[in-house]
Amino acid sequence: MTVFQKIINREVPAHIVYEDDLCLAFHDIEPQAPLHILIIPKKPIPSMTDLTTEDQGVMGHLMLKATEIARSQKIDSQGFRLVINTGADGGQTVDHLHIHLLAQRPLSWPPG
Amino acid sequence: MTVFQKIINREVPAHIVYEDDLCLAFHDIEPQAPLHILIIPKKPIPSMTDLTTEDQGVMGHLMLKATEIARSQKIDSQGFRLVINTGADGGQTVDHLHIHLLAQRPLSWPPG
Repeated sequence: MTVFQKIINREVPAHIVYEDDLCLAFHDIEPQAPLHILIIPKKPIPSMTDLTTEDQGVMGHLMLKATEIARSQKIDSQGFRLVINTGADGGQTVDHLHIHLLAQRPLSWPPG
Repeated sequence: MTVFQKIINREVPAHIVYEDDLCLAFHDIEPQAPLHILIIPKKPIPSMTDLTTEDQGVMGHLMLKATEIARSQKIDSQGFRLVINTGADGGQTVDHLHIHLLAQRPLSWPPG
């Protein structure tokens, strides 16, 4: 079981900022920006390469919620960056699909 | 009109790798990795902060197509990184929502 599944199950503590039936959002414990939140589906999809057409709704939901969370954190006007890592080259470290939301500093280019 | 709208309209050339009714994908002209593709909705959504609930379907579609494109480019097993920039801190440079797909080198951390 991944650490994110344990956070969903409340077996590992996390600073949760949003939750609904489909997703959970919480602060990254190794923040790379003053604000660094992870948004995950509750469904244990390991990575982007495991998506099926039945996941289209939940992925759209995660995208809309990312903006809602940015708004609730009052960083929607300054801006933010969303990042999804997949596999070794992508730098994925937990096998549960997650969206990084980074904000409150200027994010440079290239993105890693 | 943004340069991406001009690419959709075929008024500006681009190296297009995928197209359907809802989206277009083409190579970034300033690549930050050996493979660097942009995936955009045909609907002119300026940024993540302009999303409405009616855009949930198209955003889910873009996510699934990102993985399909990774597969067609044969980079799904090595991995890849998806990035969406929003506003000034995010480093957004074109006001038409776009997903960066970067691959074919190890992407470092932090992501900018």
